[in-house]
Amino acid sequence: LKIAIDALGGDNAPREVAAGATAAARRLPDDRIFLVGTESLVAPLLGSDATDAPSNVSVRDSGGAVGMDEEPAHALRSRPDASVAVAARMVKEGEADAFFSAGNTGATVAAALLGVGRLKSCRRPAIATVLPFPKPVLLLDAGATVACRPQDLFNFAILGGVFAERFFKLKDKARVGLINVGEEPGKGTDLAKGSHDLIADVSNLNFVGNVEGRDIGGGVADVLVTDGFTGNIVLKTAEGVSREILGMVREAMTGSLPAKLAAGVLRPRLVSVREQVDPENYGGSFLLGVDGSVVIGHGNSEARGVENAILGISRAGESLSRDLENALSDAQSTAKGNGA
Amino acid sequence: LKIAIDALGGDNAPREVAAGATAAARRLPDDRIFLVGTESLVAPLLGSDATDAPSNVSVRDSGGAVGMDEEPAHALRSRPDASVAVAARMVKEGEADAFFSAGNTGATVAAALLGVGRLKSCRRPAIATVLPFPKPVLLLDAGATVACRPQDLFNFAILGGVFAERFFKLKDKARVGLINVGEEPGKGTDLAKGSHDLIADVSNLNFVGNVEGRDIGGGVADVLVTDGFTGNIVLKTAEGVSREILGMVREAMTGSLPAKLAAGVLRPRLVSVREQVDPENYGGSFLLGVDGSVVIGHGNSEARGVENAILGISRAGESLSRDLENALSDAQSTAKGNGA
Repeated sequence: LKIAIDALGGDNAPREVAAGATAAARRLPDDRIFLVGTESLVAPLLGSDATDAPSNVSVRDSGGAVGMDEEPAHALRSRPDASVAVAARMVKEGEADAFFSAGNTGATVAAALLGVGRLKSCRRPAIATVLPFPKPVLLLDAGATVACRPQDLFNFAILGGVFAERFFKLKDKARVGLINVGEEPGKGTDLAKGSHDLIADVSNLNFVGNVEGRDIGGGVADVLVTDGFTGNIVLKTAEGVSREILGMVREAMTGSLPAKLAAGVLRPRLVSVREQVDPENYGGSFLLGVDGSVVIGHGNSEARGVENAILGISRAGESLSRDLENALSDAQSTAKGNGA
Repeated sequence: LKIAIDALGGDNAPREVAAGATAAARRLPDDRIFLVGTESLVAPLLGSDATDAPSNVSVRDSGGAVGMDEEPAHALRSRPDASVAVAARMVKEGEADAFFSAGNTGATVAAALLGVGRLKSCRRPAIATVLPFPKPVLLLDAGATVACRPQDLFNFAILGGVFAERFFKLKDKARVGLINVGEEPGKGTDLAKGSHDLIADVSNLNFVGNVEGRDIGGGVADVLVTDGFTGNIVLKTAEGVSREILGMVREAMTGSLPAKLAAGVLRPRLVSVREQVDPENYGGSFLLGVDGSVVIGHGNSEARGVENAILGISRAGESLSRDLENALSDAQSTAKGNGA
């Protein structure tokens, strides 16, 4: 795989991005990694380590980053040489199979849609995020398409199923659920009801039906489908509540001397709980429905998150977008054949 | 206050409901509590305690419960003497100020709408639930009105603000936020954008703007407003993630002997974390927008939850629905005066 990395995107760019990309390159000797960014800023980072950067990392010169507060479409129009735009163009032109950015999410999505382009069979893309529970689950859409139609959620179910099977290396068909306010069919908004009916009709999908909020971490599905408004709020609620509860646990372990001593014994185990639910384990979310692998990193990613995101790109493999397009067009033509 | 309790509603009825009601009656000697249910089932429970039930608890005979799996509207039509329907009618007829049921939620909402009736200025009601964080926050709608218009969320903002000031005994105006996918105005679905504009125009409301999922537990608002679809999913996601994380923490504390010993020292502190986020602390959710206090208990409530729900009814006070109606009609006429 050839992977273009927006070296200037994110709160800790370019230092942590370059460090993560270099670490990933060492673990992926058969892949090639391009650090896209202003050469004078990025090139010095490759030689600064004790050992020099591996030979499968190189720098691709570009203009500056799109800032976190810039209006994405405007920024990309006025600065076509911005690092994220150059990275997207490398995918478009076949110089790279995938691109990653931890910068402005809106700009990454816009660069992907403008630069890489949509899959033919996909009206709107979805951000697919792994919710880091002991049994990880893929949530989509986490915020790319805020206003969805049932046909979009049908597409997300297909995209999510195929992606999860590769990404989680599942032995069986991925179990796909629809986030809803009750388990029975017929629950929810018109969008939820219409989506349920369309998805339930897909013959070669392992659809487990509606899944309630309380079960999203319970391992009842490998993939959870919803619109980008609900999905974004579910993702952020889950992250916020995790942080809140772990903070309360940490708080409970300070105070008296015996509590502090006991906490000392348990600290490694509790650190491992925190690590299990750390979003940096995956380091990024795939934008599915575009013609290449596009991964959106967390704005505050450090080297470990960037490294893990790149390992994830490698794990998703080379023919990802072709396979997604084939699965979508198959499912859509079968659905039409059934009179849907 | 006179409070009617559906003694037959919930997984642990009538035993735990009667025990909770009796305990609440002891703490509220100035209030009157009616246990509504088949007399032969309920009356024996009042004498079964070491001390007999206090004199401010009495039984009101009724038919059986609406089952958890029954279709609410059909059940209420065919059995007008069901316990929840009789409790609702007591509010309608002024025999009670409030009613509580831990039974079938749909039946409680339907009994409230049919039996008690809506406030004149409220098109659709909302379920207002306290999210039990260290800084508790009132979430509405948690699922009464799945398909909302901006005007509904405007109403929920008014209802939630007035209710939170009484229920949390706030010294200042309640801070009201709108759950959305970004903090800036102009984010989100048409519903979210339209609701933001309407709510931002209310002059005597302390509107803090959009609140993202990650901040719902962070104490940035006293009240969080959203549609019943999103709110139900947020509530259940928060409950599910809390349970999941606390389970992981508990799991981390077993295993080796030193871990078990340390866990023994810390157990009381961790139990207190679990207790802080226990939904039974509030024991129920208010259905706001109907002409009386109506509280929906958790189906699996035990005596403590029932007791806390009744204490909450007492805390919300006597003139709740009149004050809510006044606040709604004031806000609506001001909004119309502004050309909204």
